[in-house]
Amino acid sequence: MIQVAVFGYGTVGKGVVEVIETNKALVNKKAGEELNVKYILDLLDFPEDPYGDKVVHDVDVILNDPEVQIVCETMGGTRVAYDYTKRALLAGKSVCTSNKEMVAAFGPEMLALARENKCNYLFEASVGGGIPIIRPINSALTAEKIEAITGILNGTTNYILTKMEREGANFEDVLKQAQDLGYAEKNPEADVEGYDACRKIAILSSLMAGKNVKYEDIYTEGITKITATDFVYAKSMNKTIKLLAQSKEVDGKIYAMVSPFMIGADHPLAMVNDVFNAVFVHSNMLDDSMYYGRGAGKLATASAVVADVIDCARNMDRTIPCFWEAENVVLGGIEDAKRSFFVRVSADKESEAKAVFGTVSAVAADVAGEFAFVTDVMTEKEFSEKADKVGILSRIRIEA
Amino acid sequence: MIQVAVFGYGTVGKGVVEVIETNKALVNKKAGEELNVKYILDLLDFPEDPYGDKVVHDVDVILNDPEVQIVCETMGGTRVAYDYTKRALLAGKSVCTSNKEMVAAFGPEMLALARENKCNYLFEASVGGGIPIIRPINSALTAEKIEAITGILNGTTNYILTKMEREGANFEDVLKQAQDLGYAEKNPEADVEGYDACRKIAILSSLMAGKNVKYEDIYTEGITKITATDFVYAKSMNKTIKLLAQSKEVDGKIYAMVSPFMIGADHPLAMVNDVFNAVFVHSNMLDDSMYYGRGAGKLATASAVVADVIDCARNMDRTIPCFWEAENVVLGGIEDAKRSFFVRVSADKESEAKAVFGTVSAVAADVAGEFAFVTDVMTEKEFSEKADKVGILSRIRIEA
Repeated sequence: MIQVAVFGYGTVGKGVVEVIETNKALVNKKAGEELNVKYILDLLDFPEDPYGDKVVHDVDVILNDPEVQIVCETMGGTRVAYDYTKRALLAGKSVCTSNKEMVAAFGPEMLALARENKCNYLFEASVGGGIPIIRPINSALTAEKIEAITGILNGTTNYILTKMEREGANFEDVLKQAQDLGYAEKNPEADVEGYDACRKIAILSSLMAGKNVKYEDIYTEGITKITATDFVYAKSMNKTIKLLAQSKEVDGKIYAMVSPFMIGADHPLAMVNDVFNAVFVHSNMLDDSMYYGRGAGKLATASAVVADVIDCARNMDRTIPCFWEAENVVLGGIEDAKRSFFVRVSADKESEAKAVFGTVSAVAADVAGEFAFVTDVMTEKEFSEKADKVGILSRIRIEA
Repeated sequence: MIQVAVFGYGTVGKGVVEVIETNKALVNKKAGEELNVKYILDLLDFPEDPYGDKVVHDVDVILNDPEVQIVCETMGGTRVAYDYTKRALLAGKSVCTSNKEMVAAFGPEMLALARENKCNYLFEASVGGGIPIIRPINSALTAEKIEAITGILNGTTNYILTKMEREGANFEDVLKQAQDLGYAEKNPEADVEGYDACRKIAILSSLMAGKNVKYEDIYTEGITKITATDFVYAKSMNKTIKLLAQSKEVDGKIYAMVSPFMIGADHPLAMVNDVFNAVFVHSNMLDDSMYYGRGAGKLATASAVVADVIDCARNMDRTIPCFWEAENVVLGGIEDAKRSFFVRVSADKESEAKAVFGTVSAVAADVAGEFAFVTDVMTEKEFSEKADKVGILSRIRIEA
């Protein structure tokens, strides 16, 4: 029997216990041994909870118990989680986490500790919730040089954009609805400003590079400026608007960014709607592949944590390879990234815009008082200079 | 250094050597040791080929060489491949195969041999070409009870259906084009009659069940009766037509089938076009997930074989768990499967059809001389009886 401890009995922590219990026979068969949740660490007591008797408040009870071999870290945050994760790994206990902040900030350090202590630090649940994406990158696309990863990595913003598109509604109204339904937080900043997606693409970029991509270095722009009118234009161009988190290697440099993009309606990512997430991977032998599913939610995320627990059980005393060195990657500057842009200017600036931007394709849509167009491919720097010169209303990047 | 042999130097076999050579540094890093192709087994000589000096004609040279630890079986067929695979496994050499006939017909036997001889029989390339799907099922969705798998598993038929939809063309014309372009075989039966997809869904169904689903037991219907007019109707219903290979567990019984289906344009599988493949998985905790990519092609398929080689290198002297017992599954009878059907009858049979089928939704489309409708949900048996009574022109199953 393998004893497991759960750190943090919130939504995901409860889900972990539920998945292990609901699929008990199957989980034990896949693990090759019986798994038992021996402790739940939380500040609170849960007297009504069927597993309430497993709750302890002192982490040392768990860390000092040699029977506990696997810890599920579902606390979130980096302050306490950092300390507890480190101590668990130092004690030779494998850690399976859903905590993207921890992984993005301290991934290489925790992976090195796991290697040194012949255990594992696994984090399938930290990106894309229940979608298997860490494991495909680490264990399936192993014969591939991954050249680009483009993801819809945040369910809240994808839900909002999908609603805006379908209902012709504005951002603020849909955000309020989403908050009322519990799909968006009261303080929605981490989602709508792209910070959540930024942590996730930092993790995927690091796995792509084999070195550390710091999330602080990734240019991040949210969806708060996207309007119902933008979707009118997008539709007339047979495109949609998605918050994409992407990382591309061009001439040996990695360019990473989180930003709303217009993408063609026939792009596989265009059909990823509502709270679903997907990761689109381009690699040198396989070409394109995509991984789609629920990016969040109690059971989906917990299922990914439990899959990691099963992998730990299958790999006792050996560390599953994960290539993510501590050395920081120097990202390519956003100003050098090349693409075309969708631009809106007031109608009186049409000729000026044409003069400054050169060849543009006008976008016809029933919007009064505006001239809208798509630029040629140019660097972000060139674009900014031209846009400043003309004085534009707004712009959205276009994903080729 | 780990010595590798390639059995069969056709398209995929050449691809395997190419992937190992092109991504050499990366492949060796991921494998944790240098991989070297020591032998290529083929009936022919390849004097012009850069690896021509590795070609041998006698399998015993390879089987008797203790240095060879991993064999890539890219021969196809089951006669010679069966004998060579078995002898390799008995010699303790791991086998990585792209041969779906072998896996569908002899999977459990080869897996048992691998376990007994502390080596591996891996077959990621046998389904979905380069799309990681075997590994997600075996190693990622381990905390899930998989309840349904629905795949677009054949590139040739998906290419044909996509062209028919886009160009309003008929099956025969598009097949001929596809043959001219090399996307379809001169003898296209294995693809267009669904036999290829049948082998692949048999493999996936077996992994879902943990027991053996015999491909011979799976009801299989191809796309040869689908017409341009069917797509006219599909479009008017905001649906498309895809050849689906599916396996569902309902009340403890597994129902498996390969057949053309109408699916909604907003279903994630609807956007899988041209030669792309995808596998849509429904499981009890994660809900829906999907895996998308190139289902065939030299390098995509070879990449999956090489990923298996890397896994063998990482797991020398231990067998990666794969739950597929030899016990045969008794499939649920197709006559008990329930769904609704799209039906075409001649215009003069409208009232008779309505009388026999009861509630139907008429489908409006600009097709002269016909009445088309969608039935209520009923068993296949009920449907057949009613259809025989009325005398219908054609029918297509509808995927809910």
